[in-house]
Amino acid sequence: MNERPAGSRRYSYLGPAGTFTEAALKQVPEAVGEDWRPVANLGEALNDVVTGVSDAAMIAIENSIDGGVTVAQDALATIPDLRIVGEYLVPVSFVLVARPGARLEDVEVVAAHPVAYGQCRAWLDGNAPGHRHLQATSNVQAAADLFDPEKGIDAAIAPPGIADHYDVEVLAEGIAENPDAETRFVLVSRTVPVGEPTGADKTSLIVELPDDRAGALLDLLEQFATRGVNLTLLASRPVGDRMGRYRFVIDAEGHVKDERVADALLGVKRFSPNVVFLGSYPRADRIAASIRDAHDDGTFRDARDWLRGVIEGTADSEG
Amino acid sequence: MNERPAGSRRYSYLGPAGTFTEAALKQVPEAVGEDWRPVANLGEALNDVVTGVSDAAMIAIENSIDGGVTVAQDALATIPDLRIVGEYLVPVSFVLVARPGARLEDVEVVAAHPVAYGQCRAWLDGNAPGHRHLQATSNVQAAADLFDPEKGIDAAIAPPGIADHYDVEVLAEGIAENPDAETRFVLVSRTVPVGEPTGADKTSLIVELPDDRAGALLDLLEQFATRGVNLTLLASRPVGDRMGRYRFVIDAEGHVKDERVADALLGVKRFSPNVVFLGSYPRADRIAASIRDAHDDGTFRDARDWLRGVIEGTADSEG
Amino acid sequence: MNERPAGSRRYSYLGPAGTFTEAALKQVPEAVGEDWRPVANLGEALNDVVTGVSDAAMIAIENSIDGGVTVAQDALATIPDLRIVGEYLVPVSFVLVARPGARLEDVEVVAAHPVAYGQCRAWLDGNAPGHRHLQATSNVQAAADLFDPEKGIDAAIAPPGIADHYDVEVLAEGIAENPDAETRFVLVSRTVPVGEPTGADKTSLIVELPDDRAGALLDLLEQFATRGVNLTLLASRPVGDRMGRYRFVIDAEGHVKDERVADALLGVKRFSPNVVFLGSYPRADRIAASIRDAHDDGTFRDARDWLRGVIEGTADSEG
Amino acid sequence: MNERPAGSRRYSYLGPAGTFTEAALKQVPEAVGEDWRPVANLGEALNDVVTGVSDAAMIAIENSIDGGVTVAQDALATIPDLRIVGEYLVPVSFVLVARPGARLEDVEVVAAHPVAYGQCRAWLDGNAPGHRHLQATSNVQAAADLFDPEKGIDAAIAPPGIADHYDVEVLAEGIAENPDAETRFVLVSRTVPVGEPTGADKTSLIVELPDDRAGALLDLLEQFATRGVNLTLLASRPVGDRMGRYRFVIDAEGHVKDERVADALLGVKRFSPNVVFLGSYPRADRIAASIRDAHDDGTFRDARDWLRGVIEGTADSEG
Repeated sequence: MNERPAGSRRYSYLGPAGTFTEAALKQVPEAVGEDWRPVANLGEALNDVVTGVSDAAMIAIENSIDGGVTVAQDALATIPDLRIVGEYLVPVSFVLVARPGARLEDVEVVAAHPVAYGQCRAWLDGNAPGHRHLQATSNVQAAADLFDPEKGIDAAIAPPGIADHYDVEVLAEGIAENPDAETRFVLVSRTVPVGEPTGADKTSLIVELPDDRAGALLDLLEQFATRGVNLTLLASRPVGDRMGRYRFVIDAEGHVKDERVADALLGVKRFSPNVVFLGSYPRADRIAASIRDAHDDGTFRDARDWLRGVIEGTADSEG
Repeated sequence: MNERPAGSRRYSYLGPAGTFTEAALKQVPEAVGEDWRPVANLGEALNDVVTGVSDAAMIAIENSIDGGVTVAQDALATIPDLRIVGEYLVPVSFVLVARPGARLEDVEVVAAHPVAYGQCRAWLDGNAPGHRHLQATSNVQAAADLFDPEKGIDAAIAPPGIADHYDVEVLAEGIAENPDAETRFVLVSRTVPVGEPTGADKTSLIVELPDDRAGALLDLLEQFATRGVNLTLLASRPVGDRMGRYRFVIDAEGHVKDERVADALLGVKRFSPNVVFLGSYPRADRIAASIRDAHDDGTFRDARDWLRGVIEGTADSEG
Repeated sequence: MNERPAGSRRYSYLGPAGTFTEAALKQVPEAVGEDWRPVANLGEALNDVVTGVSDAAMIAIENSIDGGVTVAQDALATIPDLRIVGEYLVPVSFVLVARPGARLEDVEVVAAHPVAYGQCRAWLDGNAPGHRHLQATSNVQAAADLFDPEKGIDAAIAPPGIADHYDVEVLAEGIAENPDAETRFVLVSRTVPVGEPTGADKTSLIVELPDDRAGALLDLLEQFATRGVNLTLLASRPVGDRMGRYRFVIDAEGHVKDERVADALLGVKRFSPNVVFLGSYPRADRIAASIRDAHDDGTFRDARDWLRGVIEGTADSEG
Repeated sequence: MNERPAGSRRYSYLGPAGTFTEAALKQVPEAVGEDWRPVANLGEALNDVVTGVSDAAMIAIENSIDGGVTVAQDALATIPDLRIVGEYLVPVSFVLVARPGARLEDVEVVAAHPVAYGQCRAWLDGNAPGHRHLQATSNVQAAADLFDPEKGIDAAIAPPGIADHYDVEVLAEGIAENPDAETRFVLVSRTVPVGEPTGADKTSLIVELPDDRAGALLDLLEQFATRGVNLTLLASRPVGDRMGRYRFVIDAEGHVKDERVADALLGVKRFSPNVVFLGSYPRADRIAASIRDAHDDGTFRDARDWLRGVIEGTADSEG
């Protein structure tokens, strides 16, 4: 099934060309010139990785407006043997496009992916008050549908680069409500050895809480806090067996090869009935974690040396 | 706009008749015999309440499989002047229905709401391996579409009571993966005085964290923990202004008229730049909160009496 | 028994004149010109207050070298109906004195209170290497004993002002090891209404931990931390009934009429089987507590107003 | 200076024979038949260990009535290269003794160590109302002084076994207020390799808090709590440089070779500017620590194995 030429690598992404996912993939230096495989949905993308059809898949994991992509979070929580190896941010802005020659005042039916529609609705209510919304399966497909007469579409909400792919005219730009909106993507491969820390890394986990204790979430958070590890994401997802049981999706600052993160993970692992390690990888925003002296690698090593001396009775017991 | 007969009350819900939302509304004793208004989506339902078209709206807020209904959480976080006044649980099971006389082995195209399809996919893969999925806007609409020849549908995934509303034949029952799945609904009205505690209540809040402190979530959780208030839900939602800023959707055990809950809310209010109180209402599962002596109302009153005596110097200062 | 002239007030202190306790009493403006009563020990001083012989007693409560005066802490924990109404710091320095004409090189026997001797021992070992120590009951008594030939004393360790009271010659000054040593005194009266906050206050408590929980001390400290109340002292004392049971002596920043302190005390009172409130009084060091916005009185009042509106449904529920 | 016969061991203790300290030493099986060296005070006992005059010293560290023996705590905090290797409990009860033929009704002057006098004062007030107290340097010396006519003593408070050592008559037994009082002793040697865990051990530490953080004590306690390590003692002692700076004397359940204790010590060491490890040794009360599964040694090892697999990518990342 995997007919790639030797040496080449294949990347799956939500196609067609022109999607925000493709824009994320364009940020991956090592993907340049390799085989890019557009797929129809997340399940297909991850399946490509699991079955070896592709080496990696780029998937959307969070949007600054809509929050976590829960189906992606749940897939990572339950499909074994996957690893996040990179993180990418794509600004999310939208344009309104139509067939060449069309005018904004004639727009009645607007095709759009529901998420995109939600972010642009205020603008449309103001500028095309009588419009109707027709759902599309992706932001690019909405534009493609302009050329399917059976759909009866007058305009489409699409990503800015859409005119590179389709013969459309841009009626308006920047029509989304929040100009700073962005989507966070992760590149997912099968399990591989963890890479080296860059000094600006993230570590992703899925953690189930023990059943039997009040305050279990507080105890979980303490595992990070006592080691000086900040969290950039804490999201709850149902385990699915019954109402009220959650697992937590966690992004922690730092790399599993940073001592403080490793120590926090050991604490979490001892505490939780089920931990999935999703990977340590460079942060998209390249913001280095701020670490107090008490939590840097040297302090961890010094403490171990001290403890060894204390036990052996060879070192002075004073600190 | 509100043309209700004097004295009657109107309830908006996601229609048409036969939906799980209608099943939730049937659990509301005071709604019996009143005016029930089916609407097309959540926005319409809440708008009915805001504008006074309806007195209350029943909306889905969480599913044991899919998690929080994020669009509902976000609406409650941002639309002012709404209150949750009741909570209801509806078991979520599905049947596969078709036009009378149809046979399972002939099913090729299955209409289903995407959430329902996700929960029944394993069964369909096993029992109708070659099927294709066509999206429907509600579980009931999927069944209705069976009678629209243009859709080309052979079968639909629908709620168990569907045969009361449509002339369909049930091909299979209990086709969802998890037989214990249920959806949690809340009844929402405009702001009204909070009702009396029943001993088995929940209090819902939306809380924004202060920007400027590491460990802010830990501090938030401590506000509840130090007063012995358990949380049944903690979900994060993006504030929406930029990646990495979250507000938290919280369901706490107990009623705002319980001393320990009131005290915790005071602590949260002092701590957070923005708290939305969504209501205190009887729990659907009728499980009474377990309270330690140190957190019951009498202990709170005794402590206040003691403090007053201490300040006035009239009481003995010993405890 | 109390034969004071009408209108005058009586203060008990560890005498005789010249002690550090007298130096503390000299710092009390309202004690100037009143009746000062020297007593032999702490028990007598507190008994004077309990029985009404005196209006207040000045007692040493902590030394920066030796730590808490445990007998005073235990007395305050167990004698009912006492209040701390003021705090005073006295620098602790010592001189070596002898009968007029004596020379340091002839000193063989040195009288000293054991605590004073401990603080001056290093100097004596260096400057009077062959000396012997004879215990005295107070720093002033040591000097007085110089004139009792039966004691056979050559020199005495005494407070700097000793030459005002006895005909002694100062052989050396500043002989204590730590030049910054000081002793903390408190003025104790019977229970009276608490005074007004000055902005730089302390509140003293004795708190027993509940028996039945691990982490009880952590929970106790959280009661202060969640209200932003810092502690300046936390000392453990045995309850006395069996090994391993402790009560805690706590000094908290702030005044019981500060909202955050009152709220913390309510939390402590609900939590602890036995709390003794010892008083809120101006700090000797006049250091104002640093309070975050979230913990000032206005924030507490605003939160209560908000909660009232929330319950009545009259106010907007948003924060 | 050390003239012991080859192979024999020497133990220093607060003498003379008959003291409670000697009773503690009698509980040490390996001390039977060795050289016991009575000394006059704590400083001498520890000095014997430091200089090699003795192999170990038995010292009182805490009394269930009076609390920690602060001079011993401070000595262990500041004298380098000492280790606690054992813990012993001695019930503290007192008898009133006199010269043969004496009668209780004739007792006027009672010699007693001040601590003993405090514990027996209530009985004396009731049974010898007109008595006066004369201080003695040890409980045994009080009895010895009966035979020094210059002292003018009628009776002495002494340990129950005193009649084995002196020709005295017991006027009354069990005269202390609290019949369950006991004193905790520790056996101190120079630094040696830590012994093996027995399952019922204690670990003693002296910990200084970092200067620069509010809540530092809370953070210190969390280091133990997150690893499930209970504390049996937490006492504060002044560092001595200025008022308000404390170090903490800590006894933790468990042994430094228990994984959870070692991990807690690593956390404490990273956090604190100064930690003194005083030893891990069998508890006198033989009470085994109660450990949750999450904190047993196997869980610690499993977590490390998991983390190694996670980093190498060889193991399944699921927990």
